[in-house]
Parts: sequence; C-alpha cells; structure tokens
Amino acid sequence: MTETINRQILLASRPQGAVTPDNFRLVETVLPPLQDGQVRVRNHFLSLDPYMRGRMNDGKSYAAPQPVGEVMIGGTVGEVVASRNGHWQVGDHVGAMFGWQEFGTSDGSGLQKVDASAIPLSAYLGVVGMPGVTGWYGLNRILKPVAGETVVVSAASGAVGSVVGQLAKRHGCRVVGIAGGAEKCSYVKDELGFDACVDYKAGDVLGGLKAAAPQGIDGYFDNVGGPTLDAAMVLMNAFGRIAVCGAIAGYDGAPLVMKYPTLILISRLKVEGFIVSEHMEVWPEALGQLGGLAASGQLKYRESVAEGLQSAPEAFIGLLKGRNFGKQVVKLI
Amino acid sequence: MTETINRQILLASRPQGAVTPDNFRLVETVLPPLQDGQVRVRNHFLSLDPYMRGRMNDGKSYAAPQPVGEVMIGGTVGEVVASRNGHWQVGDHVGAMFGWQEFGTSDGSGLQKVDASAIPLSAYLGVVGMPGVTGWYGLNRILKPVAGETVVVSAASGAVGSVVGQLAKRHGCRVVGIAGGAEKCSYVKDELGFDACVDYKAGDVLGGLKAAAPQGIDGYFDNVGGPTLDAAMVLMNAFGRIAVCGAIAGYDGAPLVMKYPTLILISRLKVEGFIVSEHMEVWPEALGQLGGLAASGQLKYRESVAEGLQSAPEAFIGLLKGRNFGKQVVKLI
Repeated sequence: MTETINRQILLASRPQGAVTPDNFRLVETVLPPLQDGQVRVRNHFLSLDPYMRGRMNDGKSYAAPQPVGEVMIGGTVGEVVASRNGHWQVGDHVGAMFGWQEFGTSDGSGLQKVDASAIPLSAYLGVVGMPGVTGWYGLNRILKPVAGETVVVSAASGAVGSVVGQLAKRHGCRVVGIAGGAEKCSYVKDELGFDACVDYKAGDVLGGLKAAAPQGIDGYFDNVGGPTLDAAMVLMNAFGRIAVCGAIAGYDGAPLVMKYPTLILISRLKVEGFIVSEHMEVWPEALGQLGGLAASGQLKYRESVAEGLQSAPEAFIGLLKGRNFGKQVVKLI
Repeated sequence: MTETINRQILLASRPQGAVTPDNFRLVETVLPPLQDGQVRVRNHFLSLDPYMRGRMNDGKSYAAPQPVGEVMIGGTVGEVVASRNGHWQVGDHVGAMFGWQEFGTSDGSGLQKVDASAIPLSAYLGVVGMPGVTGWYGLNRILKPVAGETVVVSAASGAVGSVVGQLAKRHGCRVVGIAGGAEKCSYVKDELGFDACVDYKAGDVLGGLKAAAPQGIDGYFDNVGGPTLDAAMVLMNAFGRIAVCGAIAGYDGAPLVMKYPTLILISRLKVEGFIVSEHMEVWPEALGQLGGLAASGQLKYRESVAEGLQSAPEAFIGLLKGRNFGKQVVKLI
C-alpha cells in the first residue's frame, strides 16, 4: 500500500501586530490507515475568513485561541475518498471544519453532505455557507429593515457584505455599500445592484455616506469597526440598529475606540454583536433561502481563488488587507 | 383683584463647558387673568434631572434644545388653585411639565391627576414618576434579567438607579451599585438592599466591580457613560445587555470615547439607548407596579430637597456633580 502524504499548515507563532508569512509553517505528514468507522475526505477548497485573525491572538475572545503548533482552523469542502463508515460513501461531497490541510479524517461527526449539482462546491464556503448565514442573520434578526429604510454595509463586496446588501434590496431598502477602490465599488453597484457605494480608499467616508444616504441610516451592518463605524454612527437615524459582525480594523492590536458613544443614547441606537455559529437554529431557514436564490442566479457572488495549500498564508494576509475580491478560498486540488 | 407674581427661571445663556449660575436668570412676571377653559396650578415641587443638561446645549440631541430666554423645562407637581375648566377642581393635585416656575397655566392638557394620600406628592417626580419608569423600562425591557444573573447600575443612589437595583433584587439577581462616596454606598447596601456597592470616588472602579461581581456582569444599567461604562464592559459576560440611559460624564463636552468597542463583538453584547418618554405604552403598567411597591414601603427612595425656586440653579449644578443624595427636587411652597 502506498503512503499518502497530507500537507498541512500549522500556526507557527502568534502575530506581533500584522500577520506575516512566518506565523505559519507548512508540514507534510503521512496519513495513518483508516480505522473502522472513519471517513477520509480530500478537501477541494479551504475557506479563508477574517475571524481566523482573532483566533491567532491569545486572550479574551468568543472562542478559544488557535493553539500554536496545530493545524490552522478553517472551513473546507471536499469529497469522500475512503470510508469505513456506513453513513458515508466514496464520492459524497461534504462540508467540514478540517482546517488548512489537504485531507481530513472524521468518525463521521462534523460532516455536512452538500449537493454540488446546482451550486458549485466552493459556494458552500461562501454564499450558502457560514458567510451567507452571517449576513442573513445580522440583516434579518438584528437590523430587521423595512421597505424604504436605508441599510449600509461595510466590506460590501465581500462574502458577507454582498449577501447583506442583496437581501436588503429584496426587502425594498435603499442599500449603500462601503468598499475599497473603484473596481470593488463598481462591482457592488453594477453587479450586485446596490444603490450606491462609498470608496473608503478615496477618503472622507462620512461625506460619501452623507451623500449616499440622504435620509440617514436605519441599519448598519458593521464588518470593520473603527472610523467607518464612527462615520456610520454619526448618520444613524433615531432607533437605528447596528449589527456588529467584525472588527477587522482592530485585529492587529491597534487602539480602536468608538469616538461618539453618546450617540447610542442621543439617537436611541441598538448595537448588537453576534457570532453566527451560536445561532444554529436559523441555519436551515437561512441556507434554504440562500441556496434557492443562489441556484436561480438571484444572489450573485464572486470568489478570489488562491491555488494550492501553500498559497494560503499570502492569500490570508491579502484578505486582511482587503486585497481579495469577494469570497477568498484556496483551491486544494 | 390683587396681582399674583409668578417667579420663573429662564435659560440666560448656553453653558461653555460646565454649567454656571449665570446661565440662569430669575424673573418675576405678573400672572394674567385666567381665561375660559384654563386651569392654574401652584407648583409645590420642581424636579431636577440630568437630562436637562443635554437640553441646555445647542446641537443634535433627541429633543429640541431648550430655547434661550424661556422658562427652563422641567417636571412639576402641584395643586390647582383656580379653574375655569370643568375637568379640574381647585384642590386637585396634578403632575405637569410646567418647568422652573412657581405657577403654571394650562388649557387642561398636559396635566395628570395624582393621588397624594398614599404617596407623597414629591414622589411623583421620582420613584412613581419619570425616573421610576425609566428604571423600570431599562430593567424590564432592555436588561431583562433572570434570577441568578448579576445586574450593575451606576448612579445607584439616585432616582433612577435606586429603582433599577431594588427591582432587580426582586427578580432574584445579584445587584451591584456604583455610587460616589462611602455614605451613598452604605445607603445603597444597607437601606436599598443591594448586594454590594463600588465607590467610584475611591478609584479603581474596575477592581471594585471585579470583586463585587465575581461571576461577571449580565446586565448593566448605564447612567453615566465614560470610564465607568468602559469598566463594566470589560466584565460583561457573553450575551450581556447594556441599557444606556444617561451619559452625565459627557454633558460638558469633554471628549468621551468608548475604549473597548470590540468587546461588543467579542462578548456578543447588546447595547441600547432609550428615552422613556418615547415608550408611553409601558407607563400605566410601570406606574402601577411602582406605586404599589412605594405605597407599601417595599420600594425605598430618598430625596434631596432644595428650598425655594431661587435655589434651583445651585441644586442643579450640584446634581451634575453628584452632590445630591437621591432624587433632587426643589420645594416651591
């Protein structure tokens, strides 16, 4: 029997400030023989997501830190290549959390069967996966917009933001995105159908938002925190809602304050942080809607695909700097 | 017919930073004869409340600024002394918003009849008035504590804070107050029955709170903002709620940031600002409960009484500096 090599990327060290390539280490290990009851999956795609940056830090967060010396955490989709478990057949497509590696082995738990016929496999890492449900939850359960209201979302061309904006349009809202650069802003307006998009790299986010949201902001889906959040807060209408989904601006430990917290009182705002994995009760409903819209082409999405496991660290660093365009995945096969 | 003089305090100028006595002006006017349909009330007590500080500023707030040259806004309780309105009789006790003056005249609108037999008249400005309902709303509609949780409230000996803490105790919570000075803290623990009280004037609010809330904080009722809010946020448990009721620390225009906004995400907090006058639907239920508890002595309260309209400016400045002890009122008769 020939040995199969599994390539893996470990967290080598915790970042001091910005993430660098030497925070990661690529290793090759020999896969052990499959035990009775086990399933082996060849991962086709690895998901790269901003939350991973938080896990790389040691310290208080909503989840345990990623241990140094272990395989980096991450969502994957792939295909069963060997099974000694009656519930799984070779050829099944599965989603899992196998992390940054080419193969995953499971006792059958933690696997979700996915249908790759109507929707491409990689989309289960994005629009019909965790990012899609994240957008769905924040919009429907926190922002709860009604027709005619104005919804703003940052990181608008990304995996989460693009879902938030498109769903908000379906609610009859005026939808304004915030994205970095003219190309992303064009995509957000012309392809995704947002009413307007503010290019934060052009400076003066507040002025841009004011022009794009002349009636003020009723719901803000925050993927970034920092000065962008401050600008949105200034323009929030009375009884506005803010869904706090990400704080990418603060991941590297730079001081990140909220400049105008008294606006929470003055404008009677509701500001709520959430983690979608703690609301599993909405996943079936959300994935049902997102899957239907994606399969029929009514929910658009875009992917940045990095080739090969070895490209994951640079792709991840690029993601944190906004270099990706749409959902960042790594193609592993 | 003899003329009746009405003494009034006007806003003379807007504060530049801290409020000073010369921001106010006492004037005497002759009351015009009562017209058909009108009611005249002799105000017995004037309420002084932190929200008035916000109104003294010009600029964005939840209410129009107090106009310069007009009678300062404020809640009052008093007695009908003349009536040409069939709905109101001489001797009726009424609550109203007549502001900083000795007499009020109304066409009958804006008056609430109150029963001064079981509850002292001044309590309708506090525990069974706007401050009481404020505490009731923030606790029951935003913090929604369950038995065994830990609730923290700042300005704990004040009109709002004392209601929040006593109601939270009735919910079976561990209740921790924050107040200024040993005397207020003793009152909060020994008289109001809180489990603990942190003296912010002794410094190290964070350390004090950590010791007083060993299981962390589930609900924080914020009357002050600033560093006290920052300290509470650090100790909030996952899914904690913060009711933002006041930001007294920021009224004088000092820069007031939120130091750790990423905790909203990390701890999945819900932070909500509110103004009780926008939730009139809860007043009957809240006042019913508060009135029953106050009349039977199960809800304790304390008042600081300033004597005479002319004492109102100094009493108000003292309130903003925390010099009052319990609900600050001005006795006008």
